[in-house]
Amino acid sequence: MNKESTWQSVKGIKLAATAAGIRYQDRDDLVLIQIPEKSQTAAVFTQNKFCAAPVIVARQHLKTTQPLYLLINSGNANAGTGVAGLTAAYESCRLVAAATGVAMNQILPFSTGVIGEDLATNPIAQAVPKLLQKLDENAWPEAAKAIMTTDTVAKLASRQVEIQGEQIVVTGMAKGSGMIHPNMATMLAYVTTNASVAQDTLQYCLEQAVKPSFNSITVDGDTSTNDACVLVATAASEHNISSLDSAEGQVFAQAVNEVCMELARAIIHDAEGATKFVEVFVAGATSQDEARTVALTVAHSPLVKTALFASDPNWGRILAAVGRADIPEIDIERVRIWLNDVCIVSQGGRDTAYTEAEGQAVMDLKEFTIHIDLGQGREEARILTSDLSFDYVKINAEYRS
Amino acid sequence: MNKESTWQSVKGIKLAATAAGIRYQDRDDLVLIQIPEKSQTAAVFTQNKFCAAPVIVARQHLKTTQPLYLLINSGNANAGTGVAGLTAAYESCRLVAAATGVAMNQILPFSTGVIGEDLATNPIAQAVPKLLQKLDENAWPEAAKAIMTTDTVAKLASRQVEIQGEQIVVTGMAKGSGMIHPNMATMLAYVTTNASVAQDTLQYCLEQAVKPSFNSITVDGDTSTNDACVLVATAASEHNISSLDSAEGQVFAQAVNEVCMELARAIIHDAEGATKFVEVFVAGATSQDEARTVALTVAHSPLVKTALFASDPNWGRILAAVGRADIPEIDIERVRIWLNDVCIVSQGGRDTAYTEAEGQAVMDLKEFTIHIDLGQGREEARILTSDLSFDYVKINAEYRS
Repeated sequence: MNKESTWQSVKGIKLAATAAGIRYQDRDDLVLIQIPEKSQTAAVFTQNKFCAAPVIVARQHLKTTQPLYLLINSGNANAGTGVAGLTAAYESCRLVAAATGVAMNQILPFSTGVIGEDLATNPIAQAVPKLLQKLDENAWPEAAKAIMTTDTVAKLASRQVEIQGEQIVVTGMAKGSGMIHPNMATMLAYVTTNASVAQDTLQYCLEQAVKPSFNSITVDGDTSTNDACVLVATAASEHNISSLDSAEGQVFAQAVNEVCMELARAIIHDAEGATKFVEVFVAGATSQDEARTVALTVAHSPLVKTALFASDPNWGRILAAVGRADIPEIDIERVRIWLNDVCIVSQGGRDTAYTEAEGQAVMDLKEFTIHIDLGQGREEARILTSDLSFDYVKINAEYRS
Repeated sequence: MNKESTWQSVKGIKLAATAAGIRYQDRDDLVLIQIPEKSQTAAVFTQNKFCAAPVIVARQHLKTTQPLYLLINSGNANAGTGVAGLTAAYESCRLVAAATGVAMNQILPFSTGVIGEDLATNPIAQAVPKLLQKLDENAWPEAAKAIMTTDTVAKLASRQVEIQGEQIVVTGMAKGSGMIHPNMATMLAYVTTNASVAQDTLQYCLEQAVKPSFNSITVDGDTSTNDACVLVATAASEHNISSLDSAEGQVFAQAVNEVCMELARAIIHDAEGATKFVEVFVAGATSQDEARTVALTVAHSPLVKTALFASDPNWGRILAAVGRADIPEIDIERVRIWLNDVCIVSQGGRDTAYTEAEGQAVMDLKEFTIHIDLGQGREEARILTSDLSFDYVKINAEYRS
């Protein structure tokens, strides 16, 4: 990624990264993001019932007040750590609060890294003053790099749009390369903007944006204990967006959607051991849920994923995965499947015009779409996924050895 | 398996295997099983909505009359083959009917093998006379071998019990080493007995027996288009079992359950690329469905399965999989997890008495149990599974190359 050309700072949003030594040596592993007063903050968190201590604390703090600082460490997930974990998460917030003079509940903590090990807060105590000194509107690349765990590239995205004559910037960063890594939890994303947006509109905007992006990508179907996505609007702009239904609201939402999609795509491109980037597009469903269920069943199928790895146009596996999806009804005679534009399945079997050479040509690509039409209705869903490779097994089997 | 010591013939059930050359050269790939008149037959089939042509035909024939012959080929699944597939399945039945003088609907066809290729019936036509000549009560080992696709060992199991002074034999065979193989569909099982059992009791007995056995094993979560399990009672015995609630019924059901369990365990032992045999035992659930959902989520998790392959006592992955299981409610504080007798998780995190050495000692075993207690109720479920190894990827990625 050419970072210089693809991101812009957001006035008032300052970032800093430092090497606190929480787990890694000689690399940044602690990030502080300062949020201007009068900002609005929206957030969505993991749906895993066993959420990590920082998720519990962040949710709690968000209920009471607007945050002024986000503190993110990438060495330790502080998950599966019981009461000690909660204490460490609160203590992290207290350390920033004490150094800045803001209230403790105005800090949101985030963690990613090893599960089940206690998070020591001494390194954080020593690092906070350094972070405060370094806060800078232009530190996005350093911050994006510091929140990485097993990611191989930093993930940044920006969009600029004009709303009522004002330049509105939406800039975000994300980390993640498996839904959970070995022990390394997680997908984290931080998106910021100088727009003025009502709190409930901002939250709605984020919830809509994560559906086709962060909630529609899958590496291995495992969802982590620590996932979080935050959208901060600094309200520096004059024009206030009170609804996404307005023309301005639509322009703004589109920019947020695009940033989230670009970050989500970057995560799949960086997926553990991935050699393919595949969109599973299900159309012709009676509901979006139905389309999504079928798309996820195909995207999670180990047999489909190993066929992708082998560049094998194995339509029987795709058809069998569609057939076992947990949806009420389906008529195999109406199902059609394409690899990009090549029809491989129609009327219950291999399309009569299909040739293996055509299917092979698509499968040999690094990026393509598996397009499934259920022939039942008009709803659709898209899921981005990767293949199941030797390296996936290697990365996930050998991490602790 | 020492076949000589582990199976017994069932009077009246005759089998034959031959090399029809449907796909493989120089190995048996077609089996005929003759069933005595006045037998009762129960069956369960795949729940995949796209079931193969032979499944459609077998279901249809079973509705109209009692079968007298089962015809099984292991070279071609005859799935995803549309109208041509149905025609081939009917033609297979017609060939046996013509050669034996019984009605066409008294033949049940079964297929396993490549998906999506037309099943030629010429080889079957030529083989049927040979099969009829060879029918033999003692051909179980040959038949069990001939139905194999990627299985590495033939799977046979027998139990003998006494009911009202009579010797009742239950003998079965099965094939399967992935839920679906590359293109090789399937789990097939044929269990027979000389007991006299009412039809509805026999069907109920089979449905109860497959739950903890064939329906509680998973290699990769993919269910095939061709799965079938048949239970035939020849009614040679004097005593008639009209209910499973009677003492005799219980003894009989227990024998059927044990044969099904032994065959199911043999399938997991023979799972594609497997290096581990793991039971996921979930207790303390509010319902059996809940227990089963949690057990399947853990058993399907690629992160748990790669940890098993690596012999890594990675309890964070197990806990995270429990937490994302689709059940209404769960309290992490009440969840406990053991590897065999070693408690690894309690009160929301690593058990305080746990040592990595103890966990490692269990993980180094070839067979062990992941025992999860949800602490919510009294229901439980068991799922047998294998690990996710390099060889699983290799077998499934390289099959067609």
